[in-house]
Amino acid sequence: MIMQAAFFELTKVIPVDDAIKYLKEGIQKTYKKKGQLVVDMNCKAVDKGIDAIEEVNVPHKWLDAPDSREKDLTKPEYVDQVMIPVNSQEGDDLPVSSFLNLADGTFPLGTSRYEKRGVAVHLPHWDSTKCIQCNQCSFICPHSAVRPYLLTEDETADAPEGFETIKAQGKALENYRYRMQVSALDCMGCGNCADICPAKESALTMSAYDDEVSQADNWDYAQTLSRKDIDLDKKSVKGSQFRMPYFEFSGACAGCGETPYMKVLTQLFGDRMMIANATGCSSIWGASAPSIPFCKDDQGRGPAWANSLFEDNAEFGYGMAVATKQLREKIEGNMRAIMELDIDDNLKDVFREWLEYKDNGEESRRTSNAVVEALENIQTNDEVVLKIAERILRYKDFLVKKSIWSVGGDGWAYDIGYGGLDHVLASGEDINVLVFDTEVYSNTGGQSSKATPAAAVAKFAASGKKIKKKDLGKMAMAYGYVYVAQVGIGADKSQFLKAITEAEAFNGPSLIIAYAPCINHGIKKGMGKTQENIKDAVSCGYWSLYRYNPDLSKKGRNPFILDSKEPTASFQDFIMGQTRYLALAKEFPTTSDQLFKQTEMDARKRYEEYKKMAEE
Amino acid sequence: MIMQAAFFELTKVIPVDDAIKYLKEGIQKTYKKKGQLVVDMNCKAVDKGIDAIEEVNVPHKWLDAPDSREKDLTKPEYVDQVMIPVNSQEGDDLPVSSFLNLADGTFPLGTSRYEKRGVAVHLPHWDSTKCIQCNQCSFICPHSAVRPYLLTEDETADAPEGFETIKAQGKALENYRYRMQVSALDCMGCGNCADICPAKESALTMSAYDDEVSQADNWDYAQTLSRKDIDLDKKSVKGSQFRMPYFEFSGACAGCGETPYMKVLTQLFGDRMMIANATGCSSIWGASAPSIPFCKDDQGRGPAWANSLFEDNAEFGYGMAVATKQLREKIEGNMRAIMELDIDDNLKDVFREWLEYKDNGEESRRTSNAVVEALENIQTNDEVVLKIAERILRYKDFLVKKSIWSVGGDGWAYDIGYGGLDHVLASGEDINVLVFDTEVYSNTGGQSSKATPAAAVAKFAASGKKIKKKDLGKMAMAYGYVYVAQVGIGADKSQFLKAITEAEAFNGPSLIIAYAPCINHGIKKGMGKTQENIKDAVSCGYWSLYRYNPDLSKKGRNPFILDSKEPTASFQDFIMGQTRYLALAKEFPTTSDQLFKQTEMDARKRYEEYKKMAEE
Repeated sequence: MIMQAAFFELTKVIPVDDAIKYLKEGIQKTYKKKGQLVVDMNCKAVDKGIDAIEEVNVPHKWLDAPDSREKDLTKPEYVDQVMIPVNSQEGDDLPVSSFLNLADGTFPLGTSRYEKRGVAVHLPHWDSTKCIQCNQCSFICPHSAVRPYLLTEDETADAPEGFETIKAQGKALENYRYRMQVSALDCMGCGNCADICPAKESALTMSAYDDEVSQADNWDYAQTLSRKDIDLDKKSVKGSQFRMPYFEFSGACAGCGETPYMKVLTQLFGDRMMIANATGCSSIWGASAPSIPFCKDDQGRGPAWANSLFEDNAEFGYGMAVATKQLREKIEGNMRAIMELDIDDNLKDVFREWLEYKDNGEESRRTSNAVVEALENIQTNDEVVLKIAERILRYKDFLVKKSIWSVGGDGWAYDIGYGGLDHVLASGEDINVLVFDTEVYSNTGGQSSKATPAAAVAKFAASGKKIKKKDLGKMAMAYGYVYVAQVGIGADKSQFLKAITEAEAFNGPSLIIAYAPCINHGIKKGMGKTQENIKDAVSCGYWSLYRYNPDLSKKGRNPFILDSKEPTASFQDFIMGQTRYLALAKEFPTTSDQLFKQTEMDARKRYEEYKKMAEE
Repeated sequence: MIMQAAFFELTKVIPVDDAIKYLKEGIQKTYKKKGQLVVDMNCKAVDKGIDAIEEVNVPHKWLDAPDSREKDLTKPEYVDQVMIPVNSQEGDDLPVSSFLNLADGTFPLGTSRYEKRGVAVHLPHWDSTKCIQCNQCSFICPHSAVRPYLLTEDETADAPEGFETIKAQGKALENYRYRMQVSALDCMGCGNCADICPAKESALTMSAYDDEVSQADNWDYAQTLSRKDIDLDKKSVKGSQFRMPYFEFSGACAGCGETPYMKVLTQLFGDRMMIANATGCSSIWGASAPSIPFCKDDQGRGPAWANSLFEDNAEFGYGMAVATKQLREKIEGNMRAIMELDIDDNLKDVFREWLEYKDNGEESRRTSNAVVEALENIQTNDEVVLKIAERILRYKDFLVKKSIWSVGGDGWAYDIGYGGLDHVLASGEDINVLVFDTEVYSNTGGQSSKATPAAAVAKFAASGKKIKKKDLGKMAMAYGYVYVAQVGIGADKSQFLKAITEAEAFNGPSLIIAYAPCINHGIKKGMGKTQENIKDAVSCGYWSLYRYNPDLSKKGRNPFILDSKEPTASFQDFIMGQTRYLALAKEFPTTSDQLFKQTEMDARKRYEEYKKMAEE
């Protein structure tokens, strides 16, 4: 709006007053559904666009300025040869030879870190004197741009000026110094970190970009710090954040409700993950060519990621699961064969341990490393033994138990891909499914899905959806052998950690449905409050947290655990804080009340059902 | 086997002893899964094929026999011009002009009655002295080949010799004579009718074809009898059978477990039905070109039937539902408009009544007829009135409330078409779904589906299915606004009638899952006992009967009614009566016991869950 207004003022292609009139009429028409406030803001933008034109004089010498882009040897070849040219809109000029190493369609990981967008208007400022070292800010950061670091004495001494640290708190950390570090150039400035800080006085406050941008150097230093092998539960909120996120700096909207789930997931399982990603927002923030936010650690390990279609993504992940299972059974066969031969007893012990922990994700990294080391150093002249050893080593990447995830939005899981998802869950195979439930086709254009609750306004439901939200979890629970959970990171981080840990460890299909606030919701408080929004959703009974673990049935216990408390906050206040509901009241004042009541009843009934299930 | 053996004996292409040896080895290999009995029977067939060769001398005059096929004016033109030539394998010789009236892809209905296959080895013989007039034989006949008739005095007098009748029993029938008539040339000879007869001494016994084939003339006479407008509940087992089946003489297997459901459905709703049929057995017996078993009454009314794909049949029916709804809303709009104009008060009453019963299938035929009659005889010069009247009459076929059904097997509903089925059920639209659950891909080749229970042997589950049967009904019930029922016609006919009546009347989506024994099951007692098999399935707890009616919730009552009693019969005896389970014990004796126990546990648990739901 601002630039259009300025354009008409400068070019005078039509009389400026007419242009202003047309623009404002257009604003009225386009935004009236979003409320008078939005209309007024846009009209004001038009006025400002005309009033605030300022001429910027470009230095004359720019005329002959040379192109200073030079080969940067500190960056991977791909970044220099492909990514930077493509991002500079020079991709069409690249020779075919630039893609020689990408001929199979794979892209190098961890390249989003070279984009350094620097788009935040405000950046979080860390006040070390107020920090209680809970790591919650890091946990919920949608962009992995706020991270805690632990420093040895030497590292503390070497730190640049202004790289403030405090004594790390906690038994396992007593030899370290602690610092919360923001990546000034990667942060999107949403403010969720500052909002979630539970310290008496917030340890993070949003400050002007210019005041904080110098943190970029501190970030660079933080990247040089060594990995600390600390004895802290990685499945705790605090402990998980000292682990590397294998997902960082995606191009998701500032404050995205989806990405924190993915980030934490990679912190727990990233070094052995395979991800099948459905079409949707997650396939965009998961890999906006030419850069990729999934990354590798110093061992070269990280998630394998691939994107499939709306209609077959569960099956796509299923294929990964079945193929991996097959390869690992082949390994097992060879392992059992070699154990029958004349080999060292120590070696047998190594193999025996691998077999024992074969399907234990937590332990299999250690036992797999032991197998590789043993086989690579095997002392024998027995050709049969050597041949089998070679066969096992050929698939050494599959020694470790893979953590296989099909992920996507509700448009995939509730709707277009549901037939396949149901089939895969029914199969009983060991696969994990994570659904980012934004209750609408977010990336595809805001269409209503079966996850959209009654009364919400969306495309194909312009007068408010009439039908209640599908209970995907309940349908999956009908199988009895599928692990199912509903989670909400902003409402209960520990419950989310429990759910993903249990789901991943469960030897069968798992389904996790994660509530994810979205720009499509039109959250009045803004996208800096997405985590608070999740909390509100749970406390008013809009969203319920639960875990259904078939392993509990086997022990004779109720498999269903309701993790959220009896709702106490106002349901209507919650939905009225979002344009998707508010618009209905504005457009259809006569029918909206009934629909608002209905959607509250739907949620209430759902909660009562869960409660009953939990009490059985 | 018989013919192969005879071939080798006659041609002597290889030494006959070798041929016999190879044949028997082949039999051993092919049939050993089906048990020693089947192997022995086939080996015996080989021996008989050699021993029992008999030369048949063909009359010499056949050499110059003329083709006696002549135009038969009593048959519809289509039968004469297309069907008979195609069935005589002369379809390729037909000129394009034969298909002039079929250019839009529609086929005339009711043509299977002209095929007169005469394939039964045994036919039911009706003993009028033993008959208790319950009509159960007619109810469960898979081929609509056994039907009760009511005769006036005159009709009785005109009847041919041997057309025995008895005094009709029951209040509404006191002026009529009663007869149970078999169509000798359409009957497939399965024997289910004789088996189900509840009379002290069975009123139907299976007799040799030659002794009964003369009944064909009696059948022809029965077809000339007038429709009787009797005051008997058409939703009762007995009453329903005096109504015309709009589905007859399909090419389904003798004793098919699916077709009786469809037949009874048409007896209740056939004159206003639209059927979307998924790929599968039902799409084959539903329309084996060139003949069609769906038929029309003397008013020219009958089901509209069309076949779509595995993957979109629910949506196909949904399209019919939405289109019909739209047309009827248009009619309603015109009706309301014409009522505002200066028309006769009587006319207004007619319209008012139509509007009142618009969505009431039972009443809308009467009110629709009244509207048509009133509009066709309207006395006015008001051009606007005439114009609107013409608009209503243009869509007069849609005045009646349509009964829309998506039907198909478990391969469709549980598997390939499930994503769409779920979407359609979720939509809340007024559509009915009937699933023929044979627990396997019957027509497609016997592959395992998600409806296949644990331990059953099927393609892709050669060592017995490891995963329990999907509870499709429970998943649909999760919506809360979908009518759901499980039925089993041989176990409880009245419950089936209740279910389809409630489903059809329910103003929303309905799902009925019907247990359907199939040749794929390898029922030891044979396909003449399919109805008994359903009864056994229910009494041992293999299959449960229930109805879930959301309308009851609205009245504050429990929507779930469990219609089947606590199982008492032996579950293991039931499954051991079927090759699909028995084969597992033969092939995998070490693991089969565990799987048999598991599948019984699965069924038991399912029943317990239903019981709990019924008690809430």
